[in-house]
Amino acid sequence: MARVPRHRRLVLPLLCLLFQGATALLFAIFVRYNHETDAALWHWGNHSTVDNEFYFRYPSFQDVHVMVFVGFGFLMVFLQRYGFSSVGFTFLVASLTLQWATLLQGFLHSFHGGHIHIGVESLINADFCAGAVLISFGAVLGKTGPAQLLLMALLEAVLFSVNEFILLSLLGVRDAGGSMTIHTFGAYFGLFLSRILYKSQLEKSRHRQSSVYTSDLFAMIGTIFLWVFWPSFNSAPTALGDGQHRTVVNTYYSLTASTLSTFALSALVSGDGRLDMVHVQNAALAGGVVVGTSSEMMLTPFGALAAGFLAGTVSTLGYKFFTPILESRFKLQDTCGVHNLHGMPGVLGAILGVVVAALATHEAYGDGLQNVFPLIAKGQRSATSQAVYQLFGMFVTLVFASVGGSLGGLLLKLPFLDSPPDSQCFEDQVYWEVPGEQENETQRPLRTGESDTQA
Amino acid sequence: MARVPRHRRLVLPLLCLLFQGATALLFAIFVRYNHETDAALWHWGNHSTVDNEFYFRYPSFQDVHVMVFVGFGFLMVFLQRYGFSSVGFTFLVASLTLQWATLLQGFLHSFHGGHIHIGVESLINADFCAGAVLISFGAVLGKTGPAQLLLMALLEAVLFSVNEFILLSLLGVRDAGGSMTIHTFGAYFGLFLSRILYKSQLEKSRHRQSSVYTSDLFAMIGTIFLWVFWPSFNSAPTALGDGQHRTVVNTYYSLTASTLSTFALSALVSGDGRLDMVHVQNAALAGGVVVGTSSEMMLTPFGALAAGFLAGTVSTLGYKFFTPILESRFKLQDTCGVHNLHGMPGVLGAILGVVVAALATHEAYGDGLQNVFPLIAKGQRSATSQAVYQLFGMFVTLVFASVGGSLGGLLLKLPFLDSPPDSQCFEDQVYWEVPGEQENETQRPLRTGESDTQA
Amino acid sequence: MARVPRHRRLVLPLLCLLFQGATALLFAIFVRYNHETDAALWHWGNHSTVDNEFYFRYPSFQDVHVMVFVGFGFLMVFLQRYGFSSVGFTFLVASLTLQWATLLQGFLHSFHGGHIHIGVESLINADFCAGAVLISFGAVLGKTGPAQLLLMALLEAVLFSVNEFILLSLLGVRDAGGSMTIHTFGAYFGLFLSRILYKSQLEKSRHRQSSVYTSDLFAMIGTIFLWVFWPSFNSAPTALGDGQHRTVVNTYYSLTASTLSTFALSALVSGDGRLDMVHVQNAALAGGVVVGTSSEMMLTPFGALAAGFLAGTVSTLGYKFFTPILESRFKLQDTCGVHNLHGMPGVLGAILGVVVAALATHEAYGDGLQNVFPLIAKGQRSATSQAVYQLFGMFVTLVFASVGGSLGGLLLKLPFLDSPPDSQCFEDQVYWEVPGEQENETQRPLRTGESDTQA
Repeated sequence: MARVPRHRRLVLPLLCLLFQGATALLFAIFVRYNHETDAALWHWGNHSTVDNEFYFRYPSFQDVHVMVFVGFGFLMVFLQRYGFSSVGFTFLVASLTLQWATLLQGFLHSFHGGHIHIGVESLINADFCAGAVLISFGAVLGKTGPAQLLLMALLEAVLFSVNEFILLSLLGVRDAGGSMTIHTFGAYFGLFLSRILYKSQLEKSRHRQSSVYTSDLFAMIGTIFLWVFWPSFNSAPTALGDGQHRTVVNTYYSLTASTLSTFALSALVSGDGRLDMVHVQNAALAGGVVVGTSSEMMLTPFGALAAGFLAGTVSTLGYKFFTPILESRFKLQDTCGVHNLHGMPGVLGAILGVVVAALATHEAYGDGLQNVFPLIAKGQRSATSQAVYQLFGMFVTLVFASVGGSLGGLLLKLPFLDSPPDSQCFEDQVYWEVPGEQENETQRPLRTGESDTQA
Repeated sequence: MARVPRHRRLVLPLLCLLFQGATALLFAIFVRYNHETDAALWHWGNHSTVDNEFYFRYPSFQDVHVMVFVGFGFLMVFLQRYGFSSVGFTFLVASLTLQWATLLQGFLHSFHGGHIHIGVESLINADFCAGAVLISFGAVLGKTGPAQLLLMALLEAVLFSVNEFILLSLLGVRDAGGSMTIHTFGAYFGLFLSRILYKSQLEKSRHRQSSVYTSDLFAMIGTIFLWVFWPSFNSAPTALGDGQHRTVVNTYYSLTASTLSTFALSALVSGDGRLDMVHVQNAALAGGVVVGTSSEMMLTPFGALAAGFLAGTVSTLGYKFFTPILESRFKLQDTCGVHNLHGMPGVLGAILGVVVAALATHEAYGDGLQNVFPLIAKGQRSATSQAVYQLFGMFVTLVFASVGGSLGGLLLKLPFLDSPPDSQCFEDQVYWEVPGEQENETQRPLRTGESDTQA
Repeated sequence: MARVPRHRRLVLPLLCLLFQGATALLFAIFVRYNHETDAALWHWGNHSTVDNEFYFRYPSFQDVHVMVFVGFGFLMVFLQRYGFSSVGFTFLVASLTLQWATLLQGFLHSFHGGHIHIGVESLINADFCAGAVLISFGAVLGKTGPAQLLLMALLEAVLFSVNEFILLSLLGVRDAGGSMTIHTFGAYFGLFLSRILYKSQLEKSRHRQSSVYTSDLFAMIGTIFLWVFWPSFNSAPTALGDGQHRTVVNTYYSLTASTLSTFALSALVSGDGRLDMVHVQNAALAGGVVVGTSSEMMLTPFGALAAGFLAGTVSTLGYKFFTPILESRFKLQDTCGVHNLHGMPGVLGAILGVVVAALATHEAYGDGLQNVFPLIAKGQRSATSQAVYQLFGMFVTLVFASVGGSLGGLLLKLPFLDSPPDSQCFEDQVYWEVPGEQENETQRPLRTGESDTQA
């Protein structure tokens, strides 16, 4: 079988070393502990831990961290011969993205006195950026090598951070759980990138582009950890107190509803009434995506259920009807169906945010308005105006994602990056030493043959 | 192979849509954020997070949430051809149960001003109810279709909530970790239901009612997450402070002891000294069940060890000797052995609660008596009286579980619910599009054959 | 195949019962709740939870608990025929170690009034001791029976606790995340023990000493949970406030850098540029080990990156070049390569602690010096002096580990402990009832044959 060409074996390790070296240098120059993390700067106000935000953010952070690595990593293990690459490249790409995001977000958000100051909020935000990169990875899963992915991550981390800065800091858009900044951005960046990298003879690898029984169960590990911890994902950066609490409650119920609609639709659209594990693995999660923007708002518990139900429906229908059309008509090969799980639910979530923001009143939010819509609370904006900004933020995100993804696609066509040939996609052996799938029976003298389940 | 009959394909999706629609409507009418979750109702007392119980409950809640979905879900993946259904139906049934439990427990516990008020405590209690339903699911695993399970969950959520209300609110019974309300109730509800649904020709599916090497390892994911997070399960609803702390410590040690006795007994009762993975997957967890009632009490660390040891012993012996008798003599088919993991240890836990309550003194509990036994602290009950109430609570639970489970069995016999035929139990293909177990060798041109572990 | 000899079947269960009985007796005599856990001793100072350290330690504790059981347990599942033993014996051995460590560390650290007083700190420290024992287990994985492992754990728990007491309490050494006390100690204890137990004909079992595709994916569950929660591991016992916060930040970044260097080196040292899953599973974690001592110190974010990068490099090179030499020249069979993941990175981490301690100044730490280096803050030691103590602590640890491991090896040669013969290593069937690897095709009437991925 075709291996990595000899003269190109050095591309991946050299990129790793180069990127890590340059990033470490920038860390040495710019990155410092913030006042809560530095031994010399931080003091207990009154010998209590009360004022230390770290303790109110840390459990959510750990949940988000699990989601990025366990959740996204294992969700992509569903391919029968690409499990090593799915978890392995998740690991590689996310690790580097965490460092870059720290630098980029730091320059934009916490740069003062010539230094970036980091603490647990930096870790959460870096994980969010890694989430967006992994969503894009899902669109091109199996069709890109690790060197390509590293360059994708670099470009995407830059554009993610700039887009996020424009939305959150310049436009005053609210998007705590990232329906726009993470899901919409990550999905369309990946989709446009995948479009540019269109592989016209991918049918040569089609026999590997499916799951096996075991790989589907591994993928469910990813699904369930994403599902269970999504309340922490959406609430990690919200205001402490009622803000985090409400976000948790809304996300929890939204996910139950998207699960229900996913099962209902999956059975309805199949020819024979049987359920499709692909829908359960993915569309059931759409409830978390769709309330990413609005879950910190006064969405109401019913609103959370309705949003989740809609997202699960749209996502399942997308897998059944839309993904095949995207590929056949638009030459858009979307391995994990990120358009269904992140793209459409992300846009829906942005629009839901527009609607809920437009309905914001001083009466409904009371003093809490300051936390959710500070510009409205200060009288600088009306609710309608905030809604318009929210909508504008969505379009900005779509522009950044589509232009960025297209540029990324061109970048990833650089020949020295070694895209796998169309006939060798979805195959771990191109990149990994792969052991056999089961032990050699002839070398197994200990087998007793007593089990009646052995052939 | 037999598929779902054509004219019945709509039962599952219609039930999902009907139930979700009705539940969402009830949410719209009745469910509101509580004062800690509502932006307008909630205020920082003194600009600190001190008084916000949310932050002291949230980490435990997340652990419980992991236990319900990852723990129970994967624990049931041990069957060789029923992994999709185990995790998938767990997902489906638990999602709907969370919504119903919110409504039912809300009406009983937090209904005022015409509304149910929800916050993180609602989420914890809903997860507890889902835990009970999943225990019952374990008894009928592989022998019931998803439409049946949805109806089971609806009935069980109602009876669970009523039974819990009677015990905790009317009888003043203490049962933080749910030895009675969750484990005893869930187990006997499922067992009586399974008895009514007795499948006389189940031997036709017997070749599928066993594990394979990989499915046993997947099941261990469930076991270990249950084991590790059980301290959070028992402590999630207890009084803050020493109550939660003591519950954590007691549960932690009880589980270590049940693990020890499980290994000892498993080796002792096998014919050849070898261990049985079924025991390790299940009986090792009995230490968490058995201290569900008493772990918030002054059980003492030694008491926790003794209780756990006893529970692991009883549970392992149950798997070896009692389960076969239940099936052959009492026509009780208990797929996961919930009688051994939840039934007997639950009853033992209830009795342990009786004993420890009877031993409660003002001296031993000090001011903490108010938190653990408020009625004794107020002088409204003696310790003996509390013990009698605890015992009575156990019998109430057994009555609710047995009558409810029997009714549930009759309900699930409704023909349009499509129970799988006896010859097609424990088989995912009845309900799922199932991929192959391994890739097609003949379609795999990339295989190098270099691995010496490949045949 | 050879089973456990008839007359020796009782060794494991009797050891379990004996050890559990004796330990429970010691618990009854000595172990009591501490003032935060006892209902009668504990009071809310001011009706707030502010002063209750439990709530600031509990999330970290749960993460550590997950790491010990899920992380170490599944990391060792990589062997194709030893998954049951890997997770099962992890469960068994760690459970008993938690009880013993509670007693041993309690006698040394919290014994007063004739009693050991336990709380959540006891649980964290017991889990740390279990971590060390599981590291040693990794060195002898597949070559020792469960009875041997129980004796190993007993001896190792004693020596771990004494060594830890000498370092932390007598020498005033700082080692929050245990580069010395956990990783160096656990690794060299296991390696010396493995040396004594050298199996000269292990090539007879060599065909089982490798992974299969699925077992490597299970192992990645362990890897990723270890990776994600390592910040909690290193920070669990540090000072509240900036200490924990800084430790989390340092560990997080160190791990990203060790992941990068692992991928770079893995590709560089392979013959054909392909990556090796063994490196990713293990060396990527070295960044957590190497900052175990220094992550609570003012390491700086750059320092964390540099340390992690170095550790990943050394660890990957160790797997490639050093492990084969250890076995061929030094007769040291190290199944999991703990020398590469825990041994060398642990020693590196100790040395890094020496350097960072030597650089400590009042200026850099401010008031925080009291928390990190109390003896320097009090003027009882200079930074240089502290560094010398740190270095001395490393040598003490190496002496305890090597002498203890050697003694342990002799102990485990006791014939009644039944070491598996050289030809039956890495094989679950010696100790477990093992089901087949896949269902019997001929007994599967439901298979439709419609899937084109089935042969």
